[in-house]
Amino acid sequence: MPGKHYLFTPGPTPLPPEVREVLARPAIHPRGPDFLPPYERVLGRLKEVFRTEHDVLLFSSSGTGAFESAVANLTEPGEHALVVSSGHFGERWAAMATRYGADVDHLRYAWGETPDPDEVRARAAGAAVVYVVHSETSTGVVSDVQALGAADKDAGALVVVDAISSVGAVPCETDAWGLDVVVCGSQKALMTPPGLGFASVSPAALAKARETTTPRFYFDWERTHQAQAKLDAPFTLAVPLVLGLDVALGLLLREGLDAAFERHVRLGRATRGGIKAMGLELASPDEDRSAVVTAVHAPDELDVSAFLLDLHERLGVQLIGGQGEWSGKVFRIGHLGWFDILDITTALTAVEDGLAAAGVEIERGVAIPAALGAYDVARV
Amino acid sequence: MPGKHYLFTPGPTPLPPEVREVLARPAIHPRGPDFLPPYERVLGRLKEVFRTEHDVLLFSSSGTGAFESAVANLTEPGEHALVVSSGHFGERWAAMATRYGADVDHLRYAWGETPDPDEVRARAAGAAVVYVVHSETSTGVVSDVQALGAADKDAGALVVVDAISSVGAVPCETDAWGLDVVVCGSQKALMTPPGLGFASVSPAALAKARETTTPRFYFDWERTHQAQAKLDAPFTLAVPLVLGLDVALGLLLREGLDAAFERHVRLGRATRGGIKAMGLELASPDEDRSAVVTAVHAPDELDVSAFLLDLHERLGVQLIGGQGEWSGKVFRIGHLGWFDILDITTALTAVEDGLAAAGVEIERGVAIPAALGAYDVARV
Repeated sequence: MPGKHYLFTPGPTPLPPEVREVLARPAIHPRGPDFLPPYERVLGRLKEVFRTEHDVLLFSSSGTGAFESAVANLTEPGEHALVVSSGHFGERWAAMATRYGADVDHLRYAWGETPDPDEVRARAAGAAVVYVVHSETSTGVVSDVQALGAADKDAGALVVVDAISSVGAVPCETDAWGLDVVVCGSQKALMTPPGLGFASVSPAALAKARETTTPRFYFDWERTHQAQAKLDAPFTLAVPLVLGLDVALGLLLREGLDAAFERHVRLGRATRGGIKAMGLELASPDEDRSAVVTAVHAPDELDVSAFLLDLHERLGVQLIGGQGEWSGKVFRIGHLGWFDILDITTALTAVEDGLAAAGVEIERGVAIPAALGAYDVARV
Repeated sequence: MPGKHYLFTPGPTPLPPEVREVLARPAIHPRGPDFLPPYERVLGRLKEVFRTEHDVLLFSSSGTGAFESAVANLTEPGEHALVVSSGHFGERWAAMATRYGADVDHLRYAWGETPDPDEVRARAAGAAVVYVVHSETSTGVVSDVQALGAADKDAGALVVVDAISSVGAVPCETDAWGLDVVVCGSQKALMTPPGLGFASVSPAALAKARETTTPRFYFDWERTHQAQAKLDAPFTLAVPLVLGLDVALGLLLREGLDAAFERHVRLGRATRGGIKAMGLELASPDEDRSAVVTAVHAPDELDVSAFLLDLHERLGVQLIGGQGEWSGKVFRIGHLGWFDILDITTALTAVEDGLAAAGVEIERGVAIPAALGAYDVARV
């Protein structure tokens, strides 16, 4: 039979069939009457999901592009910026801000550590902008962005949050927590293919952007802000992705954000419960907030690449290894977006089978009951 | 019955069903084994279609984003650049290069004029980079980019070509004509939804980019060049669009580039033949090279917006009006990409009916025979 495929990566994530269906629709024009109703809905639904009353600017780009919009619009060369990193993506933002000429103070935690709000508060003094990561997809750490944001505001800085894999999966209260810029991508908890990036922008951030002189055009906030105010876009939008996002956001809001957050917490518990039951060691924190992706220390004797390839070839299962300095040392199981408990038990079953095939000694037959127990089906 | 829809805009263009079908496939990971074969094919097919042996860099962005990659990578602030414009997009590139700090000489032709290679040669002296438009989608003018490129090379400049709506529709011999950078977008003659942009980059252009200091990250050529060399991408690609592009480029190459160019020439002749037969006046040049989009002067008594809305509401036909200074003064019929002669006769039929409904005096019943005659079916 043709192989079945199972995608358990922390982005791109699986697509609901309702989303896939609209991707295949005949082409429509992004400035024509057929596109405007879904586009208007998307802009409104993004605000609901970001929990903001301000603009959520939409870019046809990856999440990194949307993050670059923050750096390009907020950086005045030579100005002091603090970048807080504890993994691959935080380090990317430090490199990016440096490339844009910011005077970067890089508060660099070890991979897998969780940034400490008090330390961030002390370092944020004098910074015009502080960049923090909410969900560090490379490690599974979800930081306390409410506390980090408060620390930055105490210091008088604008706070920019990489929430690329957190919005829709874990709480991110843009306005209530005073987060000036929250960046997200379509292909994570928002259940849409990659190709769209978002940045919510506070009035203070937009005002700052009007003063900075760093060159930008495609990612210029003011241009997109003004266009969206007229239900237009400055550049041709990736139409099918916007239509898919409309459907996906509708599904998410129908479930309810709080219900989705609760589901992600329980999927995280289930994944960690299964992994620990096998006798494996977690690389990501064993806490409820870590509800996006679980990173697992690879046993010493395991060749991670061969293990992942075996799972793909024999079972059609796609997991992913580590990035950067965690390359070859961990494998990761995503549980964000269109995931339910049976996805988790399938992923754990594949992990158990793949490790056994690789000759790794693990506890057999205990992961699934542990996962189901941790998910706590009875309490639904 | 649910309305049928007919898209006759110069991008986004209609999607072949083979392309639409792959857009709806279940999600796959862009670094997994399922994605690499189509990705490798796409990178190879882009080189064939661009007629280059060098890299065609792929960005998840609109065509403007890919064009910005040229400006961001080639601009050293204060260096002299020549921008040749004769319509909306050329003017956009002048604004963009200015925003990036180039010392811009803007050789500005009136909308609808065709740039003169001798004039460009004279003005190009001393410019580090010359920006020219191959197909000016706003007016229908297709310039003689071979001659313009030669003029720029004579002056010792790098030549950057906006070929967003020309690659795949009219000849663009990147290497043979010495074009350093050729920029295209997915949603024009390449029959794929919007959301991907491309820039072919000559070794000289790449070498220049390694020296410039203008900040960029997402659109940095070297980063994408190095990733593509390893069949990777620096940022998450818009997976469904790449899969669609693979299929679309396969269709184009199976037809054959020369056959596609010939088809576009004949579709342009047919469109102009029908328009002229009705007694309307062309705004775009009445020449074979103008094979991408036909701009038509709106009769004085016509409200273009109301006319376009009427066509959409009564007949499901989507044409488009003018941009910028041609807003309200022209309407445009695209004939690039997945178009055949019956699309043209349908578009002309709609135009005739819509003008009649608007009370415009035109010749009735002559456009279709004129179009068929101009297309010259007998010579196929």
